[in-house]
Amino acid sequence: MKNNQTASALPVHKYRPYHQQFRVELPDRTWPDKHIETAPRWCAVDLRDGNQALIDPMSPERKRIMFDLLVRMGYKEIEVGFPSASQTDFDFVRSLIEGDAIPDDVTIQVLTQAREHLINRTYESIRGAKQAIVHLYNSTSTLQREVVFREDKQGIIDLALNGARLCKAAEATVPGTTVYYEYSPESYTGTELEFALDICNQVIEVFQPTPERKVIVNLPSTVEMATPNVYADSIEWMSRRLAHRENVILSLHPHNDRGTAIAAAELGYLAGADRIEGCLFGNGERTGNVDLVALGINLFTQGIDPQIDFSNIDEVKRTAEHCNQLPVPERSPWAGDLVFTAFSGSHQDAIKKGFEAMAADAARQGRHVDELEWAVPYLPVDPKDLGRSYEAVIRVNSQSGKGGVAYLLKTDHALDLPRKLQIEFSGVVQAKTDAEGGEVTSQQIWDIFNDEYLPSPHENADVKWGRFELLSTRTASDLAGSVQLTVDLRDGDQVSQVTSTGNGPIAAFLHVMEERGIDITLYDYVEHALSAGGDATAASYVELDVNGKRYWGVGIDADISTASLKAVVSAVNRGIRVEAGERQLVTA
Amino acid sequence: MKNNQTASALPVHKYRPYHQQFRVELPDRTWPDKHIETAPRWCAVDLRDGNQALIDPMSPERKRIMFDLLVRMGYKEIEVGFPSASQTDFDFVRSLIEGDAIPDDVTIQVLTQAREHLINRTYESIRGAKQAIVHLYNSTSTLQREVVFREDKQGIIDLALNGARLCKAAEATVPGTTVYYEYSPESYTGTELEFALDICNQVIEVFQPTPERKVIVNLPSTVEMATPNVYADSIEWMSRRLAHRENVILSLHPHNDRGTAIAAAELGYLAGADRIEGCLFGNGERTGNVDLVALGINLFTQGIDPQIDFSNIDEVKRTAEHCNQLPVPERSPWAGDLVFTAFSGSHQDAIKKGFEAMAADAARQGRHVDELEWAVPYLPVDPKDLGRSYEAVIRVNSQSGKGGVAYLLKTDHALDLPRKLQIEFSGVVQAKTDAEGGEVTSQQIWDIFNDEYLPSPHENADVKWGRFELLSTRTASDLAGSVQLTVDLRDGDQVSQVTSTGNGPIAAFLHVMEERGIDITLYDYVEHALSAGGDATAASYVELDVNGKRYWGVGIDADISTASLKAVVSAVNRGIRVEAGERQLVTA
Repeated sequence: MKNNQTASALPVHKYRPYHQQFRVELPDRTWPDKHIETAPRWCAVDLRDGNQALIDPMSPERKRIMFDLLVRMGYKEIEVGFPSASQTDFDFVRSLIEGDAIPDDVTIQVLTQAREHLINRTYESIRGAKQAIVHLYNSTSTLQREVVFREDKQGIIDLALNGARLCKAAEATVPGTTVYYEYSPESYTGTELEFALDICNQVIEVFQPTPERKVIVNLPSTVEMATPNVYADSIEWMSRRLAHRENVILSLHPHNDRGTAIAAAELGYLAGADRIEGCLFGNGERTGNVDLVALGINLFTQGIDPQIDFSNIDEVKRTAEHCNQLPVPERSPWAGDLVFTAFSGSHQDAIKKGFEAMAADAARQGRHVDELEWAVPYLPVDPKDLGRSYEAVIRVNSQSGKGGVAYLLKTDHALDLPRKLQIEFSGVVQAKTDAEGGEVTSQQIWDIFNDEYLPSPHENADVKWGRFELLSTRTASDLAGSVQLTVDLRDGDQVSQVTSTGNGPIAAFLHVMEERGIDITLYDYVEHALSAGGDATAASYVELDVNGKRYWGVGIDADISTASLKAVVSAVNRGIRVEAGERQLVTA
Repeated sequence: MKNNQTASALPVHKYRPYHQQFRVELPDRTWPDKHIETAPRWCAVDLRDGNQALIDPMSPERKRIMFDLLVRMGYKEIEVGFPSASQTDFDFVRSLIEGDAIPDDVTIQVLTQAREHLINRTYESIRGAKQAIVHLYNSTSTLQREVVFREDKQGIIDLALNGARLCKAAEATVPGTTVYYEYSPESYTGTELEFALDICNQVIEVFQPTPERKVIVNLPSTVEMATPNVYADSIEWMSRRLAHRENVILSLHPHNDRGTAIAAAELGYLAGADRIEGCLFGNGERTGNVDLVALGINLFTQGIDPQIDFSNIDEVKRTAEHCNQLPVPERSPWAGDLVFTAFSGSHQDAIKKGFEAMAADAARQGRHVDELEWAVPYLPVDPKDLGRSYEAVIRVNSQSGKGGVAYLLKTDHALDLPRKLQIEFSGVVQAKTDAEGGEVTSQQIWDIFNDEYLPSPHENADVKWGRFELLSTRTASDLAGSVQLTVDLRDGDQVSQVTSTGNGPIAAFLHVMEERGIDITLYDYVEHALSAGGDATAASYVELDVNGKRYWGVGIDADISTASLKAVVSAVNRGIRVEAGERQLVTA
């Protein structure tokens, strides 16, 4: 069976394998025979490394929400900023200290470069804190020594040692604060191991760690450059050789350029590290820092307490999304929307049998099912333990292989349904297909959609869709904030002309409905064109509360304004049908 | 420095470490001393494992687009479906064969369970193909044997052997097709290694592989259950013991439950595997299959040709997003929107110096910079090699720490700008701040936005914003597809009343503009409410081509329809200002 793959045109000559650039040799490595048995010390760097990599950096309010979330989850070491580099970071650190927001058992961490005025400014920022970690760094990589700093090795060592000594001296300016130290040879993975060891050991001697006041040596994979076993080898190599190792907390800081940061953290931890720095859901520069959620829940699924609360993963996700203004991807480990889904019949069947077997075991043993060991195929964790559910995420998939409901409406009818309406309509389709069985075609989906939301003509022309129907509209606006709306409206069998005023046509039309005894609140509306060009037809979607229950309505018209009014009619008619018992209320 | 972490309330008693469930012992492992030197055989399973995990399964058209993309990129083994389980998959396989869509050097692969009617149906599907891989699987895990199949080990072996024999027999039904075999002990990571070996070796004996017709033994991490070094150990263990090893192609199929699938594939490949199955961007069940893009480009950055074309990664991304209807996350390795960004000043400075040093080296050596080894800090690959750029993705970040442009407009003014308008406006802000220097406040951003898009009153009341101004609107619709629009319009110093007709107010208004010599095409419009409730004010955004150039316009009004017309005026006025040389055209 021949391998038919052929050379690509990629310029491979521009790149050299990592092992030809840096020597990491440890034939007597011990880490691959070890197992993780306890949680590492965690340090969350969302407010520093995470924040600096955002399109929209966090506002002070969002920073505080993130800080409080991290504290609530159980993180005890939190890097809160780079106060000497940014006034905003400085102000935020001050606000935490002055606002008494830091619990006694939480230690804030602040980053600083090894320069005198930056170090002094850093100490200014932490004044009044009970304790703080001052995180000193300088870049040690061959590349940066050459092209950025143009310094030899001794120059780089002097920079670090001078910084460490300035830090020690600055302690006098914060008499009430216990200061701990962290040192990072930045771009460690781009640094010769021997040089990284040398500079770390010389810095350790300046800090003179004791059992009560250990020093953190952090070895960042600032850029991930090799397979994760190489990082682990380098960590074991360093761990064996670091001075005062018993008083050193060896810390990892993996980035995810190659997509293997989680593995690098786990293997590096096996290799002797004590501590891991990362961000929730892997936020951070470029491809991100290592994902603290994945690392923590990975431990949990091995029966190891991560010492972090992941029992409401959706709340953690929502909060992080709000703070970072970045979505957590659908397939993000343990937290993505699709992680507890099963679409294939064989998976669904196996999962069902797994649940049944556990229930039967529990009954036989006279125990609650939550006392048993978790054993359900294709679900490596009980979604319930993370505040999620398996049932809740089964999707409408009856049309297996023919394209999904939302996609078909978009492709075949140019309708781009809002997410919540997609879910509502999925329920409508599901109810129909469960009732009628079999596959669903695009035409059937369109018929169901029409029947549910749109006033499609009944085969019998005398039968009308719903209580209300819009026959004509007329608006006048003086651009001073008031619109006069006149509509010809059918209400049951009666047609009448009604005029109303509001600051927009929808507002005016809601008054018309209210006068007819319908109690309405508008929650959301979305509109889009059905085609490009000036003769575009528009679709409008409104979410209304109609007499106490929520309904979406849909309107399609060449006139944007009329489409919105039709959407209101659609939602109201749907509500009335449910009240009359003609339809069931489908909730997502 | 005390570790203050405390126990969480997570039910850790429900989970047992992997190594207490399955024994994988290989103290004399050799893989950690090895380096990857060539690309593996790739097999893309986007059309099977990927497709079965989509909310919206691919339509036949989308499947074909995905197939053609994979072929174009250079994949030579492509799993195209599970034809015996789905009529759609069957039809798709037939359409590929009958439509002559499969190049001679590409082998399609089809999945089947080990049951007679499914096997026969599978062979029916491949009739007429030049060659095909029949991929036979059955679940071998302890858990599925117990709760799903209720069979002992021998029963599971018999199922596999019977399937293999039925496959051999069915070859007679496809005389023109060379059939190769792949066998997967499904849920391999949940199977005792000795049993996995036993069943694989017995199946190999049935298939009797030869050098010309090797058999593929695929060892899926159907659910990822342990750190990736454990998977690698198990692969080396199996590789040493598989029968007819020289005629076996050992294949990996990692899933990403723990977020370490890429590492598992790389370490498993070091451990002796020959082949890797995965999906573009890690699509697939739950957290996905291993990401073929990350694996391939990881090789490239080590100077190893992946034998796959990644030179236009954006096209690959767009196509996959279209087929899967799932976004590729912002931080997805090598392909996400944020992967080649640098926000921090120190990173930007180092990158700049890296580019300069390379240019200087090239000049000194009299060579083109593309002949040199790539060496730029924080950019582990030259974005250009993937059809990306570093420059193009620097974001507006002048207001460092105060919240980004789009966020501030949303938070402080409830404006939710379309993505393309965000980018256009970022350029406007960037131009302003580069010109004026310093930090930008929320108020300044709002002023810039007003000045650029909205007819904000000039301090001198006689100075008007732009050539056109809308003074009043009036519409009448008969709901038969035609709208009559009457506006009071200021054009320069002249105010007049104009009436026009179109199938919507925008169309009618575009006619009004055209009559005044403006050549307009409407490309996009988006609207949303500024607040919930019936008295909502609406924002409207339109993208117009005005006399040959693209502009966004913004309109805000209580009346949705009026907001759209104002947005048209906004875009037209902006275009006229650029033509008059009063403003520069800012392109994203």
